[in-house]
Amino acid sequence: MPRRLLAIDWGSSALRGALLDAEGGVLEERSAARGLLTIEPGGFPAVFDAHFGDWLRAPDVRCLMAGMVGSRQGWVEAPYCACPAGLDELAAHLARVPAPAGDIAIVPGVSCERDGVPDVMRGEEIKVFGALELLGLESAEILMPGTHSKWASVARGRIQRFATAMSGELYALLRRQSILARTLPDADGGFDADAFDRGLDRAFGGEGLLQTAFSVRTLALFERLPPSAGPSYLSGLVIGEELRARPLAGVEEVVVIGAEPLAERFERALRRLGRRVVRLGEEAAWRGLHAVQQRRDA
Amino acid sequence: MPRRLLAIDWGSSALRGALLDAEGGVLEERSAARGLLTIEPGGFPAVFDAHFGDWLRAPDVRCLMAGMVGSRQGWVEAPYCACPAGLDELAAHLARVPAPAGDIAIVPGVSCERDGVPDVMRGEEIKVFGALELLGLESAEILMPGTHSKWASVARGRIQRFATAMSGELYALLRRQSILARTLPDADGGFDADAFDRGLDRAFGGEGLLQTAFSVRTLALFERLPPSAGPSYLSGLVIGEELRARPLAGVEEVVVIGAEPLAERFERALRRLGRRVVRLGEEAAWRGLHAVQQRRDA
Repeated sequence: MPRRLLAIDWGSSALRGALLDAEGGVLEERSAARGLLTIEPGGFPAVFDAHFGDWLRAPDVRCLMAGMVGSRQGWVEAPYCACPAGLDELAAHLARVPAPAGDIAIVPGVSCERDGVPDVMRGEEIKVFGALELLGLESAEILMPGTHSKWASVARGRIQRFATAMSGELYALLRRQSILARTLPDADGGFDADAFDRGLDRAFGGEGLLQTAFSVRTLALFERLPPSAGPSYLSGLVIGEELRARPLAGVEEVVVIGAEPLAERFERALRRLGRRVVRLGEEAAWRGLHAVQQRRDA
Repeated sequence: MPRRLLAIDWGSSALRGALLDAEGGVLEERSAARGLLTIEPGGFPAVFDAHFGDWLRAPDVRCLMAGMVGSRQGWVEAPYCACPAGLDELAAHLARVPAPAGDIAIVPGVSCERDGVPDVMRGEEIKVFGALELLGLESAEILMPGTHSKWASVARGRIQRFATAMSGELYALLRRQSILARTLPDADGGFDADAFDRGLDRAFGGEGLLQTAFSVRTLALFERLPPSAGPSYLSGLVIGEELRARPLAGVEEVVVIGAEPLAERFERALRRLGRRVVRLGEEAAWRGLHAVQQRRDA
């Protein structure tokens, strides 16, 4: 009997799920603002059941979850798989959720070491493998922008290494909590492409964000940047700095997985650096979980 | 008759003054938490009089002020002098405070352009010229660390260019407002030199602060950095990043003007990069104001 998969991405701030057919096609999707930060201790089974219990009770449905739900603060801890990590490693290290919750397993996150310092991801690894499946690739440079951007370098079907950039969070702190907030408008207004590009070019110049950030204030002080363009300019500074610091020398194409408007800004920035960009949305997560399930069944 | 100088540094957060003899020696000092941010519109004369009126009423006393008191939000605006700017330029562009306040003038701040983007300082320029006088130098690379660090490159007695790094502010935001705060202790505890050096070396590696910052979290997660060492490590990351981004290639010696403990940390970081360091305290401000007054009298 062909079996369906309940694919779930349960992160810090959101709970999202999709019911997939045997080929990985999406039959139905649901989401709720019930990220880990909202779950009381011991509260996972009830929240899961409230949002997905009806789907899981069907006899041909199994469930795979990815994301912070597998962290130490999650439902069941799924210890990190060390890089290089591929679908085989993930499928071999699933953490089973104890009965009677149903047929549920959690995909581990991935860890790596760069110069003796660890880095971790949970949930993004699933999108990486989904992207490889969707694009028919074995090697890729993959960017998942966000509060904490993740950059994964994939070769021979395995994540070889990756890095985390706190760009989204730093942008928000500079935008709202720093001295720069005094010269920026309260509302973001529209995206100003020219100001964004100006920020990018300033960042590509290499002074580093600690120095370039102050220009948001001085350009406003000298009336060389309209206040309404400030947020776009700062966004260019931060995204430009993220790209400047990446080892992209041998990289011709970057796969960007994420939603508007952030993914579009990163695409614009990467193209300005002469890189080709392939864009994917959050469907990569469903495809990735389907791929893990296939390995499990193989 | 030899004349005395009332030298005042009136910044955003503090009001400090010193009575100097004709040779620039400090006779007496006073300070108050009456920075610009605490002054109501029109409130400058009264606050000045409350703290320094008795000194200024002596017949042989004149007053020079530096700092944000000369900004658009200050007592009287003293428009910026453009680089290259030396003592002659400052002395030629003093802004007189109108009578009947007394014989008071405000030293202008300094502006420069780097790649078409302006930068500004107010108050630090006085310390730069004070340092030159105290050290008998015509050329120097001068660092004034703080919430917003200022780096001034001096040649032939004039500030040729300078830059602002928002390092102190970024450190505070990361330390208290970001996700890193969750793995850092509430109290700073003691300075951990090993952890600080580890942060420096990580920053010198060149990944950029957006990437290296996340290691505060992952090192704690993997129990490779005790929580108590976290703030020192983060401090090393931020100060190291500030130095990494500076064009220090031809610089053998850096004059660091500032108070403990920040100035000491920068000294340690600069020595780790093989630079000689000369340290000066806030007395540089008094010497700088005295030097401006001498040019004015010449």
